[in-house]
Amino acid sequence: MALAVGMRVLTRSLLRPWFAVMKMRNPPVNSLSLEFLTEMLISLEKLESDKAFHAIIITSDCPGIFSAGLDLTEMCGRDPTHYAEYWKAVQELWLRFYLSHLVVISAINGVSPAGGCLLALSSDYRVLADNPKYAIGLNETLLGIVAPFWFKDTLVNTVGHRVAERALQLGLLFPPAEALRVGVVDQVVPEDQVQSAAQSVLAQWLAVPGHARQLTKTLMRKPTADRLLKERDADIQNFVRFISRDAIQKALRAYLEKLKQKKS
Amino acid sequence: MALAVGMRVLTRSLLRPWFAVMKMRNPPVNSLSLEFLTEMLISLEKLESDKAFHAIIITSDCPGIFSAGLDLTEMCGRDPTHYAEYWKAVQELWLRFYLSHLVVISAINGVSPAGGCLLALSSDYRVLADNPKYAIGLNETLLGIVAPFWFKDTLVNTVGHRVAERALQLGLLFPPAEALRVGVVDQVVPEDQVQSAAQSVLAQWLAVPGHARQLTKTLMRKPTADRLLKERDADIQNFVRFISRDAIQKALRAYLEKLKQKKS
Amino acid sequence: MALAVGMRVLTRSLLRPWFAVMKMRNPPVNSLSLEFLTEMLISLEKLESDKAFHAIIITSDCPGIFSAGLDLTEMCGRDPTHYAEYWKAVQELWLRFYLSHLVVISAINGVSPAGGCLLALSSDYRVLADNPKYAIGLNETLLGIVAPFWFKDTLVNTVGHRVAERALQLGLLFPPAEALRVGVVDQVVPEDQVQSAAQSVLAQWLAVPGHARQLTKTLMRKPTADRLLKERDADIQNFVRFISRDAIQKALRAYLEKLKQKKS
Repeated sequence: MALAVGMRVLTRSLLRPWFAVMKMRNPPVNSLSLEFLTEMLISLEKLESDKAFHAIIITSDCPGIFSAGLDLTEMCGRDPTHYAEYWKAVQELWLRFYLSHLVVISAINGVSPAGGCLLALSSDYRVLADNPKYAIGLNETLLGIVAPFWFKDTLVNTVGHRVAERALQLGLLFPPAEALRVGVVDQVVPEDQVQSAAQSVLAQWLAVPGHARQLTKTLMRKPTADRLLKERDADIQNFVRFISRDAIQKALRAYLEKLKQKKS
Repeated sequence: MALAVGMRVLTRSLLRPWFAVMKMRNPPVNSLSLEFLTEMLISLEKLESDKAFHAIIITSDCPGIFSAGLDLTEMCGRDPTHYAEYWKAVQELWLRFYLSHLVVISAINGVSPAGGCLLALSSDYRVLADNPKYAIGLNETLLGIVAPFWFKDTLVNTVGHRVAERALQLGLLFPPAEALRVGVVDQVVPEDQVQSAAQSVLAQWLAVPGHARQLTKTLMRKPTADRLLKERDADIQNFVRFISRDAIQKALRAYLEKLKQKKS
Repeated sequence: MALAVGMRVLTRSLLRPWFAVMKMRNPPVNSLSLEFLTEMLISLEKLESDKAFHAIIITSDCPGIFSAGLDLTEMCGRDPTHYAEYWKAVQELWLRFYLSHLVVISAINGVSPAGGCLLALSSDYRVLADNPKYAIGLNETLLGIVAPFWFKDTLVNTVGHRVAERALQLGLLFPPAEALRVGVVDQVVPEDQVQSAAQSVLAQWLAVPGHARQLTKTLMRKPTADRLLKERDADIQNFVRFISRDAIQKALRAYLEKLKQKKS
């Protein structure tokens, strides 16, 4: 199984509320393949339908990487139907995590580019390991592609319009100190304390009356989610049209080829 | 009379423009009862219709507290007509202060939770006393209730989307240094200098040509106010429906009971 | 010719991509007269239609001043047709610079009030000379006039709602350190390094795949530009009506008279 969901009990009484630790495990880099996305969605759905669970800590089981983001092999050399199916799953992942009634804390224990960054931005709070090798950001332009408007909206909601404008145009990956300074993450801690810091933060979130907190989260986030929901099909068609272009396919093939050579 | 409005002359010449010091006095905690709200609105209206006045400093006459916010006794054990009347007055208070053509400076000399924070956020500039016992924020979730969308909009306009999202979900009350850092207030000064600091700031605001300043304020704030104006009745009905729920009434009764016990 | 456009080659190979240095020269203060605006627009259009050019550095050839902003003589003592023509050109300047597919870097080597600030805000990155005599901001209220909504939108997109609200009401001109702190500019450097700093920054922007960067810029800025495009004629009529008022004409005449006396 690519996705390991470990359950731990927060309260001393071994009673509710519980939180789950969702450890992403899709080696080597937690690419968000269609299969892996689907597993994550199923896990999230299960946790959401179990009233005992109030929160998730999402983290990585792959050393040095939180998630490499979207799986380029799902976007290269396939047919339009596949692209459409894949994009719908990516949309679904964002919508479900961004609007989840659970508290979602990201314990970011590795590099987190593009879709990996989006996943972190969709949670309620981000703790990043203070490792100079780690960086986080929506770096799509550097691959010659464009972050969709709802990636952009999520970043704008987190760091404001100006930081987002510059970061998205330049495809910036922020190292820990910079990520904290501009607000891409909320906290930077020594690497061995990422999980415990996430749990400490979680205690604060779980202390708030759950129903009021959930309604407030919806109040803040629904208008942003609604923008995608209102044009979800058009967004899928845009993606399929864009990704099917010869120039884009060529660029993706070249990039994947380069990745292969690096490994060998 | 619950509300004392003291008039002072700013210019050395004892000439215009004048500003009023609105000292809130509804002991013990400046709860925004229906009667008190009404008095504040009448006072504001009088000042606005007197062309000699260009500004208000709003502050508290109750030691240690700016305003405790909405009066829970107006929201508990009454009938729907009363809830509707009360909520309309709360809306009116925000609309009138947020859009006032007068310069409004808050001299925050005490704790300022929930509706007290909203009042401060509706002014043009906020000076907070540097007292470790004081804190300011929209802490509604901690009482199990949800700040209405226009409370949220006012906070977002002040501190941005991300700070607002976290603060509203967690019901954060910011102590002075933190309030300054995130932008909930504009200035923190020693407690005995709150009034003089507010007056110094006021001099800067009054030096700007009044008509241009007022139009600019409208330019900045009208879109936010219009969102409420467009659905004012629906917002009242939402409030009445929400507050009439058994669970909410029960929670409010329990909270009021606890407050009573604290006092005795 | 009022506008000097110098071409320099960035890459060592003397090959593409090229960038142009647009040195504004309309002495003594680079007022944005109708003629000067038109020249700037023609120059921009030429550069945009030449695929060899990927970027512009915009700077001033007038010592101590980047641009004094709109030319008040175009707004005073003329007829409505002239006001309408002038305002349309001002709109056009903003729309073309704000949405330009070229990378636009402002090398701000002097004072930059009102329309001069707008021009800087419309670029992708702002480097300001660290000279205590320099300041930048939308100071319209101090002249008794009101920045149009799209000036306001551009400022809000750069510094956020709250900073913009205060800055616009008070007509704040930010000195270098303050401009950097609130985000009106991105970088402050010693005066003799403004051009070289702008070129260093440019290298980073030109390293990003151009097509993806341009689409991302459009994604970020088009909604703001569309707001003006949708009501462009109404905005012109508003301006003509406002500027034709006796009180405004009188204030402008008085201000221009004062400027003349200062010079002599």
